[in-house]
Amino acid sequence: MKLTIREVLKEYKKFIDQDIVIEGWIKTSRSSKNIGFIELTDGTSFSSLQIVYGDDLENFKDIEKYTISSSLTIEGKVVESPGKNQDIEIHATKITPICLSQSDYPLQKKRHTVEYLRTQAHFRPRTNLFNAVFRVRSLAAFAIHKFFNEKGFVYAHTPILTSSDAEGAGEMFQVTTLDLTDPPKTDGCVDYREDFFDKPVHLTVSGQLEAEIMAEAFTNVYTFGPTFRAENSNTARHAAEFWMIEPEMAFADIKVCMDIAEEHIKYIINYVLDNAPEEMEFFSKFVDKGLLERLHNVVNNEFARITYTEAIDILKEAKVEFAYPVEWGIDLQTEHERYITEQVFKKPVFVTDYPKAIKAFYMKGNDDKDAPDRPTVAAMDLLVPGVGEIIGGSQREHRLDVLEAKMKDLKMDLENYQWYLDLRRYGSVPHSGYGLGFERVIMYITGVSNIRDVLPFPRTVGSCEF
Amino acid sequence: MKLTIREVLKEYKKFIDQDIVIEGWIKTSRSSKNIGFIELTDGTSFSSLQIVYGDDLENFKDIEKYTISSSLTIEGKVVESPGKNQDIEIHATKITPICLSQSDYPLQKKRHTVEYLRTQAHFRPRTNLFNAVFRVRSLAAFAIHKFFNEKGFVYAHTPILTSSDAEGAGEMFQVTTLDLTDPPKTDGCVDYREDFFDKPVHLTVSGQLEAEIMAEAFTNVYTFGPTFRAENSNTARHAAEFWMIEPEMAFADIKVCMDIAEEHIKYIINYVLDNAPEEMEFFSKFVDKGLLERLHNVVNNEFARITYTEAIDILKEAKVEFAYPVEWGIDLQTEHERYITEQVFKKPVFVTDYPKAIKAFYMKGNDDKDAPDRPTVAAMDLLVPGVGEIIGGSQREHRLDVLEAKMKDLKMDLENYQWYLDLRRYGSVPHSGYGLGFERVIMYITGVSNIRDVLPFPRTVGSCEF
Repeated sequence: MKLTIREVLKEYKKFIDQDIVIEGWIKTSRSSKNIGFIELTDGTSFSSLQIVYGDDLENFKDIEKYTISSSLTIEGKVVESPGKNQDIEIHATKITPICLSQSDYPLQKKRHTVEYLRTQAHFRPRTNLFNAVFRVRSLAAFAIHKFFNEKGFVYAHTPILTSSDAEGAGEMFQVTTLDLTDPPKTDGCVDYREDFFDKPVHLTVSGQLEAEIMAEAFTNVYTFGPTFRAENSNTARHAAEFWMIEPEMAFADIKVCMDIAEEHIKYIINYVLDNAPEEMEFFSKFVDKGLLERLHNVVNNEFARITYTEAIDILKEAKVEFAYPVEWGIDLQTEHERYITEQVFKKPVFVTDYPKAIKAFYMKGNDDKDAPDRPTVAAMDLLVPGVGEIIGGSQREHRLDVLEAKMKDLKMDLENYQWYLDLRRYGSVPHSGYGLGFERVIMYITGVSNIRDVLPFPRTVGSCEF
Repeated sequence: MKLTIREVLKEYKKFIDQDIVIEGWIKTSRSSKNIGFIELTDGTSFSSLQIVYGDDLENFKDIEKYTISSSLTIEGKVVESPGKNQDIEIHATKITPICLSQSDYPLQKKRHTVEYLRTQAHFRPRTNLFNAVFRVRSLAAFAIHKFFNEKGFVYAHTPILTSSDAEGAGEMFQVTTLDLTDPPKTDGCVDYREDFFDKPVHLTVSGQLEAEIMAEAFTNVYTFGPTFRAENSNTARHAAEFWMIEPEMAFADIKVCMDIAEEHIKYIINYVLDNAPEEMEFFSKFVDKGLLERLHNVVNNEFARITYTEAIDILKEAKVEFAYPVEWGIDLQTEHERYITEQVFKKPVFVTDYPKAIKAFYMKGNDDKDAPDRPTVAAMDLLVPGVGEIIGGSQREHRLDVLEAKMKDLKMDLENYQWYLDLRRYGSVPHSGYGLGFERVIMYITGVSNIRDVLPFPRTVGSCEF
């Protein structure tokens, strides 16, 4: 019976005393005169499996010399292990090499820095750290789909290639089939009639506007796909290509939006805690000691909800010297966000009702009866301890006249947005949504502090390997 | 109690005689002297809900005039319906307009052609057809994740931006931040030092090679993401942006690969049949009369497996005039594929062991002892009735010397593929994988014949709306 290590470990009691076949790679290997031990991994499980072999095997002397990362077929019996780090081990009756690894394998047994491992992107998924990170990434992705599926949300594939400019959400990459050594021109301008789409096309920075189309048809939808920013910022938190989840809900005000976002975050964390206990223990031991406590704090507490104006009042009264001075109207900086969530509330906090002037055109204007000189919009950001902002969302402006007036104020080209205004002309409804950066979530759940280490193939300024 | 139509219909018996609140859009509306009927939809369910209102409502005369697609809040009681098309209806006690739709709404009650609806991409998800197609799309996507999650496969996000050329898998889009009106040049060549990634970068045509990296770490992985082809082909089956699923399995030969592919296809179809019965009935009634029979045929039969050489023999003996003459060595055309699967086997057929010369460099060479003059590779295509090829896969060449020799033969630049060869140097194992075009699956399951109608926002030559 051929099994993966995951299958064996999952119900190991069932297999005790049974003969099985396992295939995998040598993680470590040691031997003495007449007995040898191989730690075998196949990557299906965070744990590896101990293989014990004796000199009754005819190729005992060869097996001792098999190099790290060589692939093997093991035939043997499952037995309870006397060791305290494992429940079972395999007593091998036959060990057959599949392919021996060259001895200059770049990941030898010693521990490597994440910086070194980034230079070995095609090997690093084989390490404990990246095996754990990328499995958690996979589980978290599944949790997101499961959450929305259970709620009856429709998964909408919004386009990656877009001809709309997303109104300043970020710098965009252009996509073209023109020959860059000599792009065709007419009157000094690029002649897009020779380009694939007959017009300039870019990579999406957000699927929100298209998700609104889908929400006005299905009520509840979400996107989950790659998103791009051509920002020249070489930080630990920015990548040029990242994945984003954008739910969009019709007949939903900002309060409903926060309810779903809170439930959503808790669901993902609980799912990973339940389904990756070994990986989570590893992170809390080797990556971030406070991790499990922080995550349990998140899932066990009701998130706080305050307005931006209340947040400013709190910050002004804070006995802390901020690098960026606090004044009503400013965009909150990470230091402000972290102070509020870490020092004041010590749990996740929704901040709502931001100044209109610092938020996007599509956000719904509030009444602001009490402070008409300080116009706000129905925006919400979710701040979490250790990171700061992890979700940004808003109720969308669904009133045609208000939206049109605002877009004119902002000198936007209304001609390009007729389809978006059409959604307000024909069956408009209050609707809300938010964006959740998938890598931010993975960093938060694993404690890994650099976005390059939660993306299997990170793309950043000057770096696009493979 | 505010409910979606999906929630009400799912357990309607529970709600009979209860007062509920429903929000949605007017699909149709008619009234006589003292009674009116509104067919209300919120898109959460294929079925709409009948709202009955009488002249006891003070705004009876206004309600009669509400335009199609106006959004409403309905308060009322759930009652069993005397009509035979529905189990329940709502007797309204209060009807409040949210936003009235302008009366020139482009989708009036009459039936529209799919061609017309393509010009109304921001409204077409509101029609029965597209509501059904995009919900099935969402369900099929979930089925795919669920299938692989249950099997312990890791979902790997392979990169969209790539600096490798994918060796002729298809024409590629270039991605750049250079100013196309005047790209910087050095010695007549584009100077990529000024581009975002310091080198030419394109949109991926396949995640396979990177998936191989992940498979050699996790054993079983899959990708599911957007893929791009800049091919100037304006057909009903080609889009420039489409989604693809690419499983990759270590310690797996071509037979295992076919077993998984067969199970996978059946799983998706069964999941959709179980979870979208109304939608499937609609398709089989209005889109493709033979649909359900064809799908049941697929899930209930073991797929046939023949070699390419056997396929050629069958085609040569066929009493059919093919447009493309049949000879050992040719690439099978759709007419050949459909003949085999529709006329001969009348069910899905795997064709294996194609001529080496017509397949990609990475496919594993066969022994070919019986016919050394006809070298073949361990490739497999799955052909299905009504469509032809729906899956293409292969065992990968894992022998370093064989792969290197072949790449040299093909005059490939080995320098660019050192990482790929490294996978064979350090712990190589037999491995296999396949690619499944997601839109092809959706077309197959829904009977919809144009790829533009299974993509919410299709991108094709000269067309990139939004």
